[in-house]
Amino acid sequence: MTTDTFLTDFHEVAQIGATPNNGVDRQAATAEDRETREWFRAFAKERGWELRVDGIGNQLALIELRPGSPYVLLGSHLDSQPLGGRFDGAYGVIAGLHAADRIARRVAADAAEGGAAPQFNLAVVNWFNEEGGRFAPSIMGSSVFAGLMNEDEMLDVRDLRGVSVREALGEIGYLGTDERPEIAAYAEIHIEQGRILEREGIAIGAVDRSWYTQKLDIEVLGEQSHTGATLMSDRHDALLGAAKVIQRVHEVTDLFEPETLVSSVGQMTLEPNSPIVVARRVHLVADLRADDREVVLRARDQILADIREIEAEHGLVINARDFDVRDNQHYPEQGLELADQVALDLGLGSRRIRTMAGHDSVAMNRIAPTVMLFIPSVDGVSHCEREFSRDEDMVAGVEMLAEVGWRLVHGALASDADAADPVPAHAFA
Amino acid sequence: MTTDTFLTDFHEVAQIGATPNNGVDRQAATAEDRETREWFRAFAKERGWELRVDGIGNQLALIELRPGSPYVLLGSHLDSQPLGGRFDGAYGVIAGLHAADRIARRVAADAAEGGAAPQFNLAVVNWFNEEGGRFAPSIMGSSVFAGLMNEDEMLDVRDLRGVSVREALGEIGYLGTDERPEIAAYAEIHIEQGRILEREGIAIGAVDRSWYTQKLDIEVLGEQSHTGATLMSDRHDALLGAAKVIQRVHEVTDLFEPETLVSSVGQMTLEPNSPIVVARRVHLVADLRADDREVVLRARDQILADIREIEAEHGLVINARDFDVRDNQHYPEQGLELADQVALDLGLGSRRIRTMAGHDSVAMNRIAPTVMLFIPSVDGVSHCEREFSRDEDMVAGVEMLAEVGWRLVHGALASDADAADPVPAHAFA
Repeated sequence: MTTDTFLTDFHEVAQIGATPNNGVDRQAATAEDRETREWFRAFAKERGWELRVDGIGNQLALIELRPGSPYVLLGSHLDSQPLGGRFDGAYGVIAGLHAADRIARRVAADAAEGGAAPQFNLAVVNWFNEEGGRFAPSIMGSSVFAGLMNEDEMLDVRDLRGVSVREALGEIGYLGTDERPEIAAYAEIHIEQGRILEREGIAIGAVDRSWYTQKLDIEVLGEQSHTGATLMSDRHDALLGAAKVIQRVHEVTDLFEPETLVSSVGQMTLEPNSPIVVARRVHLVADLRADDREVVLRARDQILADIREIEAEHGLVINARDFDVRDNQHYPEQGLELADQVALDLGLGSRRIRTMAGHDSVAMNRIAPTVMLFIPSVDGVSHCEREFSRDEDMVAGVEMLAEVGWRLVHGALASDADAADPVPAHAFA
Repeated sequence: MTTDTFLTDFHEVAQIGATPNNGVDRQAATAEDRETREWFRAFAKERGWELRVDGIGNQLALIELRPGSPYVLLGSHLDSQPLGGRFDGAYGVIAGLHAADRIARRVAADAAEGGAAPQFNLAVVNWFNEEGGRFAPSIMGSSVFAGLMNEDEMLDVRDLRGVSVREALGEIGYLGTDERPEIAAYAEIHIEQGRILEREGIAIGAVDRSWYTQKLDIEVLGEQSHTGATLMSDRHDALLGAAKVIQRVHEVTDLFEPETLVSSVGQMTLEPNSPIVVARRVHLVADLRADDREVVLRARDQILADIREIEAEHGLVINARDFDVRDNQHYPEQGLELADQVALDLGLGSRRIRTMAGHDSVAMNRIAPTVMLFIPSVDGVSHCEREFSRDEDMVAGVEMLAEVGWRLVHGALASDADAADPVPAHAFA
């Protein structure tokens, strides 16, 4: 029956910020984001869990199982892309809440029968701004939590309309001051956003590594002029330069084996953006990812060389800056073995899998032993309204997370704190 | 001394909406636009001229010289592009006001000496939204005045933030209801926005024709997906498609003799515009202009063929629609002869010249005998902050306009009403 409640809750949350084609639009620190937070709060309050909001708007629900000990944390994020899917992030938070609820009941039942208290406390988190659609960079809340990004700098980040994170969080009443709990381990479950599990008919992916990723912040500077009255030879068209950059960012993938590199531009703004004015400035962001760090670095160098060519050809100035560089991450082997064992015990198929997308667990893996789990995505699509995962796959994932969480609070990865990758100094400079 | 006042006034108006690099930002129906209108109103009130605002926000100052007769209209527009120049449009309105002031005084002096009243009344106009940067299409106010665009349709046009022309004009208090005066002739003076007059050292250009122009409204439809997690081969990237369209719109000019065609994209918006989401929709506007109509039509056909190729290559749907088609316009020969004669009488050099840019006079030429004059532009640049014309050239232009206006109110083109091009039915469909 917990299962039934999970599905009811999942589909209820999917109504918040619902879009016409079954997606959701709940960008970070918007009214819709607040509504999901109020739902999270109500779920926790009903069960008497302690609620906290930290200085970057991360929302936590704490369950005391062993007073004074660190916390095993379950969760993901309730924010979405603009016209995004209803599964990405939301599934992991709602699964986390239901898994925690089961674990808490099981601990209580255990205690009633004279069982010992678990080794750790338990908490569920709704991370702030994982998506980064409104405020860049993405994975903001968990990265600040993990000490990988500076809180004040992130609070000063502004959206395209000039509203800061600080203002937006204040506006929705979620700029908190609560202390962050000490974390013993972290577990997150998420849709795959790829086709591997679906194609192979496997219920659970145990994520062993994340891709090397980086972004390029590119500014193309030309000269504003009249589209009708300026000779073609006199133009320094920033939009034309940007169009060529976008194409080169795409074509660079042809230099490598198919699908070993993904590279594209998703965000772009131009000034002045008038139908009869040649643009003076275009700002765009390129996103490069590969399993192999060298592939990303070679692609980046090629794009920078291409940019020098475009600059010269059109008399433009093009500034390119690396940002949001995320090294390959390896999740700890003992966490993977734990996931394999739990899947086996529950009769669920599982396999090792890599993630191309970034997740909050990538940040948390830097500071605590972390288990990252995937369930299948239909057609592998995500960040769009037709993102879809089946009810039965979601329910199996909740079972899986509840059992992983149960073993974590009982110390399954307790001695593995040093299995997390150390933070390389250059990665978040 | 009228000359001195003109320069003082010109440089005073240039302070309204002034930008750091000597430009102005006074888009249609903004607070800055209102401020220029208040300045225009004060100038007219001081002289006891009648003020009117029509249903599309055109602002007129009327001077009665011969009760009951039609009006000779002088003017241009005070709105600007975003980060635009301080000369484009504003020069013509302020020159128009000063020329009218001189003509009125001269008529009064003439009358005091027993001279006959002129044949026509006199008026000055500040046309609404010539630039079209905020509300497309451009040349809106004069086109509605001339019956070439529908007033209600134009009042419903919305800017990128969803504000309608009706709302914006209401907001600044310039949604008028006053009757439009009957027009006997129209004269406008403007900066060249090209280098011909400067290069040849000629003070005055008498505009004989305008280029054939059209826009293409292009919508690229792809599929929203994750920039990190989506296989390259699974993508339908609307921004990549748009980047190729922008390039083809530029490259089509290579098919023709240098500078016989200008073609570019200045406006573009993408959805959802998030750094880690492949765009699902891009909207852009291409602007094509040539002296020869056939050149524009051939370029347009080539672009449409290119678009079909891009569609097929990337699995996109691309919709393209012709709009804002403006046929070649010829200004009446007798108006050109009048301009030549006035320049000769004033000792100013003049030559025939074509305009690549659109102007309010292009619309007015459809309904009244029209004289369009140019003064030199330094470096030929416009729609940007470094747009520049010299004080002495501006002052010579005011002399020129005042004399042309004087002859027009005395009937110089009175019998030439039919010299204006007839409106071809297809051009504004």
